[in-house]
Amino acid sequence: MKDDNCIFCRIANGEIPSATLYEDDDFRVILDLNPASKGHALILPKEHAANLYELPADLAEKAMGVAKKVGTVLSAGLGCDGLNVLQNNGEQAGQTVFHFHMHLIPRYKGDEKTLHMTWDPGTLTPEDRDEITSLFK
Amino acid sequence: MKDDNCIFCRIANGEIPSATLYEDDDFRVILDLNPASKGHALILPKEHAANLYELPADLAEKAMGVAKKVGTVLSAGLGCDGLNVLQNNGEQAGQTVFHFHMHLIPRYKGDEKTLHMTWDPGTLTPEDRDEITSLFK
Repeated sequence: MKDDNCIFCRIANGEIPSATLYEDDDFRVILDLNPASKGHALILPKEHAANLYELPADLAEKAMGVAKKVGTVLSAGLGCDGLNVLQNNGEQAGQTVFHFHMHLIPRYKGDEKTLHMTWDPGTLTPEDRDEITSLFK
Repeated sequence: MKDDNCIFCRIANGEIPSATLYEDDDFRVILDLNPASKGHALILPKEHAANLYELPADLAEKAMGVAKKVGTVLSAGLGCDGLNVLQNNGEQAGQTVFHFHMHLIPRYKGDEKTLHMTWDPGTLTPEDRDEITSLFK
């Protein structure tokens, strides 16, 4: 269901104008007004869900189909050197609008100066491995 | 089809042992041996595809369903403060193994010191908006 207090609900449902790249019954894909790079787009479900946990499974699946479709056209059309598909859940993860969205971020040579998608790699310890795998038993 | 020269094909199909969190007919989810954070997992299709462009649409969709399922258990079990779902295409985007995979990266307070998922925001110009939207017409 749409939440009238949610700006992404209003954009996704066409109540606030946007630079729309793609639309179907369930999603709208728009250009980010403050892009990380040229072509940075956001996939927005029309139904409100704060995050991946709340989003119905069928819409989560369809979202990645939309990412493939739109990401393929973006990459081919822009001639970019890479593409990040990023979906953040929670403030610590960088989520700033609490309506599920996926970022499509085209990448270009040299852009790592302003676009950071890296980490210091650790080592998986046997203790962590056992603790985490046990969550799935 | 499986590619015998691809390490992720071999892991996904059980030829190389891994710390497996989840498996179904199409996917295996494993713990990353060099994690960005505690619980960092990789979703690997059993079929070889270099990236999102090559991956069949039905598998792309299913991958996000797996992300929802496994990410929900991980987040609840680890009590983390956020979760990034990241899928990189191309070296410039940070892809290092050229077999499609999705990262599930649990986030914890303070981890932004070693785990970077940020960018300097730009401004969408009318010229870029018109050029990019025209790719979809």
